[in-house]
Amino acid sequence: MSVTVRILMIGLGNLGRRFCDLLVEKGPHIQAHYGLHLLLVGAADSRGIAYDPQGLDPALLSAIKETGGSAADLPDASQPGVQAAELVAQAEADLLCEASPVNLRQGAEPGLTHVRLALERGLHVVTANKGPMVLAYQELHRLATGQHVQLRFDGTVAGGLPAVYIGQRDLRGADVRRIEAVPNLCTGYVMELLADGLAWHEALERARAEGVLEADPAFDLDGWDAAAKLVILVNAIMDFPARLEDVQRTGITQRDGTAVQAARKQGRTYKLLATAERLADAQVSLRVAPTLLPADHFLAGLGRKHMGVVYHTDIYGTLMAAIEEPSPLPSAAAMLRDILDLYSR
Amino acid sequence: MSVTVRILMIGLGNLGRRFCDLLVEKGPHIQAHYGLHLLLVGAADSRGIAYDPQGLDPALLSAIKETGGSAADLPDASQPGVQAAELVAQAEADLLCEASPVNLRQGAEPGLTHVRLALERGLHVVTANKGPMVLAYQELHRLATGQHVQLRFDGTVAGGLPAVYIGQRDLRGADVRRIEAVPNLCTGYVMELLADGLAWHEALERARAEGVLEADPAFDLDGWDAAAKLVILVNAIMDFPARLEDVQRTGITQRDGTAVQAARKQGRTYKLLATAERLADAQVSLRVAPTLLPADHFLAGLGRKHMGVVYHTDIYGTLMAAIEEPSPLPSAAAMLRDILDLYSR
Repeated sequence: MSVTVRILMIGLGNLGRRFCDLLVEKGPHIQAHYGLHLLLVGAADSRGIAYDPQGLDPALLSAIKETGGSAADLPDASQPGVQAAELVAQAEADLLCEASPVNLRQGAEPGLTHVRLALERGLHVVTANKGPMVLAYQELHRLATGQHVQLRFDGTVAGGLPAVYIGQRDLRGADVRRIEAVPNLCTGYVMELLADGLAWHEALERARAEGVLEADPAFDLDGWDAAAKLVILVNAIMDFPARLEDVQRTGITQRDGTAVQAARKQGRTYKLLATAERLADAQVSLRVAPTLLPADHFLAGLGRKHMGVVYHTDIYGTLMAAIEEPSPLPSAAAMLRDILDLYSR
Repeated sequence: MSVTVRILMIGLGNLGRRFCDLLVEKGPHIQAHYGLHLLLVGAADSRGIAYDPQGLDPALLSAIKETGGSAADLPDASQPGVQAAELVAQAEADLLCEASPVNLRQGAEPGLTHVRLALERGLHVVTANKGPMVLAYQELHRLATGQHVQLRFDGTVAGGLPAVYIGQRDLRGADVRRIEAVPNLCTGYVMELLADGLAWHEALERARAEGVLEADPAFDLDGWDAAAKLVILVNAIMDFPARLEDVQRTGITQRDGTAVQAARKQGRTYKLLATAERLADAQVSLRVAPTLLPADHFLAGLGRKHMGVVYHTDIYGTLMAAIEEPSPLPSAAAMLRDILDLYSR
């Protein structure tokens, strides 16, 4: 017996394109092992959409994207200039994968519209896009519940690390009193460069040259990315309706290297640490700041390609998890995890 | 709406007793949050059983056990001298928690009989007892599938660390190429004492005085415990029918402290490492041995109360998880996790 899952993929950047590769590489295994036929029927990027109810060719789409092309260049199925929202509104599909660029301003658009629309149409949603989850976590969950569909978002936090799943499922029954996380790769990398002795602008240049920085580096460097991930974790795991504006946020922009260099000489490390703590009055305090970690702190041992999270609980002791991501593949795989989890419980 | 789950608890040692405490402390929260009424209807230890379809008092049972008593001392409901197997065979119940002492000899009895009997009667089974899972993993899973009941065993590996869940669920779709684990607390503790400069018999005495050693310390010290956990992980996560006799096993018994002391001087650590690696011919090699870990190895950073696991995968990068267990509570909570997961998907 095989179940076909008709997928719409919005956003064909680093994640979306690699997700297409995963469909190609893992398709036969998933069919054999889970009885699932993952069929990409629609795809969209900023230049247009492609749609074919019989299925698009994910290998061809990935190749086109890798050479700078667009979904709108896909032979036969393409509709240049048509917006992704139109695809979500009209396509026959079972599930939306949202991986369009994160936008915490402008109401998380267009991602939020895509997610809302898909849920309203009765599609399951898997989002790697933090924006909608940060700005409308509670609303979207209510909507999904009302529509009897699933909303999954593990890929929004710390790439391929199943931070949300561990917190929601494996800590069932517990009171999670404190969360500490290093959920952002880029800031850690830049601080390591500062510790190496580079000046701020040199560190930035190097990180940019190595492809570690996004087009708008302020999103990472000013701590917005870490804050967004913290807000999602707190909503999902501490059952508290945290908002982005609740986060006391200090980034690393224009940081002087003196402190990180001195720390390294003592064998210690600064990390951009995201912390949430349950307070006595049932509130939760949220904070993102460069933090000098004790040498024996779990997160102090994380390397440049590592992200990690620590859950302090009442009945499960302290649970720690980390991931080493040598490429964006694990982040794309997080969407595959969500899909497989959704259909193969 | 509330669902009542009638539970039989076999084994009232460190885990079973703390599980009773958890029922008391977490009962109201679980009822409110998950709509589950966890009702202990039967309990057994080596001296007898207690059974009441209306429910036993877990607080009283815990108190009796703490002062050296038995389930057979529980007022009204007790049946001294009756064996646990009889309880499993006759009680009206929904779920068996098996936490009787681990026994890898004598065919994992009596635990294996309890688990088999419960599955045959259509009860779900949650086991913290490694024995049945090590000696009959494949048979018991087939039996559970045939009976349409669930068999959960996350508590058999590394206490409260959700090593099995992370491997089975969060790595869906991946090829787990290598597993490295430090799943045993006691051996790490003894090696730390050796590194402190204690001789073997002194280290052993100290560990025993601090309650870290089991009555039969050879089970831990000779690496059987770690080997058993590795066998379970490999069956569950690498989809390979590993057996205990497949593990190339070296313990730490009578170990000379020279090497661990020298290692510490260089800032490095020995751990009793359990490793499984997929080989080219679809076989899996299994090994347990004291291992000098590189300083930057994830598991090298684990403290005395930590257990950890590392999964090397094809699509999720390298995933690492660890737990700090200041008491046996998290290991008992692992059974609660299994139950909540089973009923609140």
